[in-house]
Amino acid sequence: MPDDQTHDLLIRNGRVVSVFTGETFPADLTIRGDQISGVLPPGTPVEAAETLDAAGLSVAPGYVDAHMHVESTFATPAAFAHLTLPRGTTTVLADPHEIVNVAGKPGLRWMIEAGRNTPQTILYGVPSCVPALLGFETAGAELGADDISEMLDWPGVIGLGEVMDYRAVVRGDARMRAIVDATRAKGRLIDGHCTNLSGIELSAYLAAGIDSDHTKNSVEVTVEKARMGMHVQIQEKSIRPELIAALLALPLRPPFCLVTDDVAPDAIVERGHLDHIARRAVAAGLPPLEALRAMTWTAAQRLRLYDRGVVSPGKRADLVLLDDLASFAPRAVIAGGRVVARDGAAIYPEPSLAHLPFRDTVKLGARTTDDFRWSIDAPDGEAELRAIRANPIDTSTRADQIRLPVANGEVQWEGLAAILAIFERHGRGPTGASPAFAPILGFDLAEGAVATTYAHDSHNLLVLGTSRRAMTAAANHAIAAGGGIAVVHGERVAAFLPLPVGGLMADRPLAEVVDAARAVRAALDAWGYRHANAFMSVSTLCLPVSPRLKLTDRGLVDVDRRDWAPVLV
Amino acid sequence: MPDDQTHDLLIRNGRVVSVFTGETFPADLTIRGDQISGVLPPGTPVEAAETLDAAGLSVAPGYVDAHMHVESTFATPAAFAHLTLPRGTTTVLADPHEIVNVAGKPGLRWMIEAGRNTPQTILYGVPSCVPALLGFETAGAELGADDISEMLDWPGVIGLGEVMDYRAVVRGDARMRAIVDATRAKGRLIDGHCTNLSGIELSAYLAAGIDSDHTKNSVEVTVEKARMGMHVQIQEKSIRPELIAALLALPLRPPFCLVTDDVAPDAIVERGHLDHIARRAVAAGLPPLEALRAMTWTAAQRLRLYDRGVVSPGKRADLVLLDDLASFAPRAVIAGGRVVARDGAAIYPEPSLAHLPFRDTVKLGARTTDDFRWSIDAPDGEAELRAIRANPIDTSTRADQIRLPVANGEVQWEGLAAILAIFERHGRGPTGASPAFAPILGFDLAEGAVATTYAHDSHNLLVLGTSRRAMTAAANHAIAAGGGIAVVHGERVAAFLPLPVGGLMADRPLAEVVDAARAVRAALDAWGYRHANAFMSVSTLCLPVSPRLKLTDRGLVDVDRRDWAPVLV
Repeated sequence: MPDDQTHDLLIRNGRVVSVFTGETFPADLTIRGDQISGVLPPGTPVEAAETLDAAGLSVAPGYVDAHMHVESTFATPAAFAHLTLPRGTTTVLADPHEIVNVAGKPGLRWMIEAGRNTPQTILYGVPSCVPALLGFETAGAELGADDISEMLDWPGVIGLGEVMDYRAVVRGDARMRAIVDATRAKGRLIDGHCTNLSGIELSAYLAAGIDSDHTKNSVEVTVEKARMGMHVQIQEKSIRPELIAALLALPLRPPFCLVTDDVAPDAIVERGHLDHIARRAVAAGLPPLEALRAMTWTAAQRLRLYDRGVVSPGKRADLVLLDDLASFAPRAVIAGGRVVARDGAAIYPEPSLAHLPFRDTVKLGARTTDDFRWSIDAPDGEAELRAIRANPIDTSTRADQIRLPVANGEVQWEGLAAILAIFERHGRGPTGASPAFAPILGFDLAEGAVATTYAHDSHNLLVLGTSRRAMTAAANHAIAAGGGIAVVHGERVAAFLPLPVGGLMADRPLAEVVDAARAVRAALDAWGYRHANAFMSVSTLCLPVSPRLKLTDRGLVDVDRRDWAPVLV
Repeated sequence: MPDDQTHDLLIRNGRVVSVFTGETFPADLTIRGDQISGVLPPGTPVEAAETLDAAGLSVAPGYVDAHMHVESTFATPAAFAHLTLPRGTTTVLADPHEIVNVAGKPGLRWMIEAGRNTPQTILYGVPSCVPALLGFETAGAELGADDISEMLDWPGVIGLGEVMDYRAVVRGDARMRAIVDATRAKGRLIDGHCTNLSGIELSAYLAAGIDSDHTKNSVEVTVEKARMGMHVQIQEKSIRPELIAALLALPLRPPFCLVTDDVAPDAIVERGHLDHIARRAVAAGLPPLEALRAMTWTAAQRLRLYDRGVVSPGKRADLVLLDDLASFAPRAVIAGGRVVARDGAAIYPEPSLAHLPFRDTVKLGARTTDDFRWSIDAPDGEAELRAIRANPIDTSTRADQIRLPVANGEVQWEGLAAILAIFERHGRGPTGASPAFAPILGFDLAEGAVATTYAHDSHNLLVLGTSRRAMTAAANHAIAAGGGIAVVHGERVAAFLPLPVGGLMADRPLAEVVDAARAVRAALDAWGYRHANAFMSVSTLCLPVSPRLKLTDRGLVDVDRRDWAPVLV
């Protein structure tokens, strides 16, 4: 029998955590190749090439992230793996809709290749909404049902990425329906995105075959979605004690996962990845064992991965060694049978940064201060303008208004308001280089600006500022670098994160990327942009599928009505 | 949106049971084709071709049986569907190892065809152990890894049937390993069978890639299997309050299913199918909602069927309408969107019995009383013989012994003991028509006999009796009919169930089959064979992978040692 054979690795003195029964029990583990070859009574005589003394640590399954986007970390897939494996994340389902909105099919092709030779399992969903809201924004590509049907068969692809244009689905829009039906025809996984969708509309969305949601919903809608047979995926911003209490109060525990969705690299270094989400959920009242199951077995089942998610012989040797179950912070991480990280650091070399593609995707020349003159079709005097009111907690906004003077057909906003400008940067827009504008309320901003080519989901050039000179400086810094996030105080560049790979991902060592991200966050805060998740807040001011009023390169979008909102009230 | 479109069926005034949250809520359901097209607030205006008034009944998912054998009902697949759909069973994974042990590959081919046009979803596992114990018995066929690898790709096949020869797996036997590895290479489901396997041996079995067990284990071993990451499948004989209590006491509820395995047709009519198992489990302490989830969502997940197991828009319209959740007895059953049964009866015609195959599989001529003379290589006088002691509860036996006189090289057993004789009936045996013999203890039997060609798993001719004339009469009745189960009292045939299809399945209307099965059971009981499951008890006396001492056509097998047991002690 197998235990007469030799094994590659023997883990002695560990305590296995069963996510099936919730029990922890002393056992010796053996590993052969990338699989667990034995879970044995302690002291069972075993031949193994290497032995690891777990010294009483708990041995749990590696963490499985059922919904996330690699690009949010500004890292390439291989760099992402190097950054998150030490946190225990051994498997992810990534929806690469950022790079695919910029680079189209070759974007996914490259992401698959780029993630292939890491010890982490990086699986992909084909972005379903490229662009997020067809007809309301200009992306670098457009994908139809035929493209998506082809991409679904690429190795490494397991399903369809989040169907964000839920209004199109509910309305029975032909294009969106064809994309979803093409995926159903292949029997593949379909991920959803339908913030607070409820009742008849939720039924219609589910009927299309879309059965998960990872967005932030009210507690009532979250429970309704679970009741209706939807897989609930809980990310950090969704975690509240009321939500956890509501889930725990149900007669049966619905299947739910913990997911990261979008996390910046400095946050990963400072707080963690899925391990951090788990600690937050536990702090909000979720029992640690339930948090562990939600990010191992339940997530693996959701992803239809039968070879992982539980510490069991015959399953993949993706393991975390933990001091304390509730800490979730691995002392060591084993992926595919290899020890890949210890005490929070990877023990294999950082991936090469040579030959990174998509370095010429910001198709804009240098801007001048004239680009930030806001022309408007209104008589001189004062105009009541629709404004986007942001909040310091999450990425939702609401419609508000502001009175601003108008002179010579231009809004006289400098010194009175912060203005958002979106420049189409793919060279495909109907408006050429002339931006769309909207006032942004909710922050007390000094003179300065932020410019970013990482701007969901079309990733046009987003410039937010309080003066034309600051906005021009920030924009030109990002443009000159082929992409990035620049924060300007006055006229001085206070912080810059270069993102030359598609205008989304960095080409520098992780430590530099983390430092730059931290600097950008600090500079935004110093400027007055104080937000729990500043990167996501800024970069989703132009996401027209995120509630409630957003600005694309083509204009103001009323998300709930899925229609244009006139600038003049 | 979809609710502007017309639907085929509207179910009004129902109360949907969510197996995700355990909540029950009033809703109107719409169905289009074979799918649930809406779960809507009561009274939502809907266009539908037909309307069904659920009159306050609970609407739950159709039941999913994750492990069973159609042949145990003596019915063909289409007849099985007609018999069990009214009980709410809408999906089954069948392991057709009875017919395949008799007819080989064409057996599975025919089962797939025969089940195709019923409203029930009948999926198959390729029998992994044909014969159950290679080298210890003679079946009608032998399947190797290549055969199984080919059959795994047949439409309607989802995995590998129960790997019963667990000793071969644990030992690393090359043939069994090749069969399991061929299935793993295709990433298909693998079902297990490893009664009370534990510790290092259980680890080795799991390491082979086999991750379920449906056999009756001790409470401790059942919990160990769940802890080790094995899917626990609970059948009727396994249900005890101690087991349910042990599962409910675990920190986390492990994934477990309720399954039927083997059920006779009269038992289905009198007690039920999965609905009966659920009632038994609830009586033993399992909360009704947990029983419901175990035979819907959890079972569907185990079978990797993502399109069912929960009442949700976009899922398959397999539904049961229940008065009372805890009763589990459907007032109406909907399969694939069609109402197929009401108040326990199918509302579509019984399937045709024309053109049934495998009618010439009992390759034995008429027996004479001389065939039941037991020759033995022992001196005249008395001999201490190994005997099989059966029990009145389950199918396990234990080794015992009995002293019997020997004269002229023959055991003088008549009037002193009941004798089991197994005749090879496939025309492939090394011993020709001369049977193997063993005494059976545990029942107080009058003069009489039972003969059956339904005798797990090789389905040779099993004859058990207390006199040579009775055994001859029973054997010849079964042989003459091309298969069946005959019970003889004295010399008179007291009951007979004809099974001419492979010697396993009937060619008569279900009502006749049920009556005959009932008569056989009653005749066995009247004879003195008093057992909770007489059909399984008799027909597994020759199953050499079922504990603990069994008799095949080739001799006595010590199951635990997986070796021959000498007849003479």
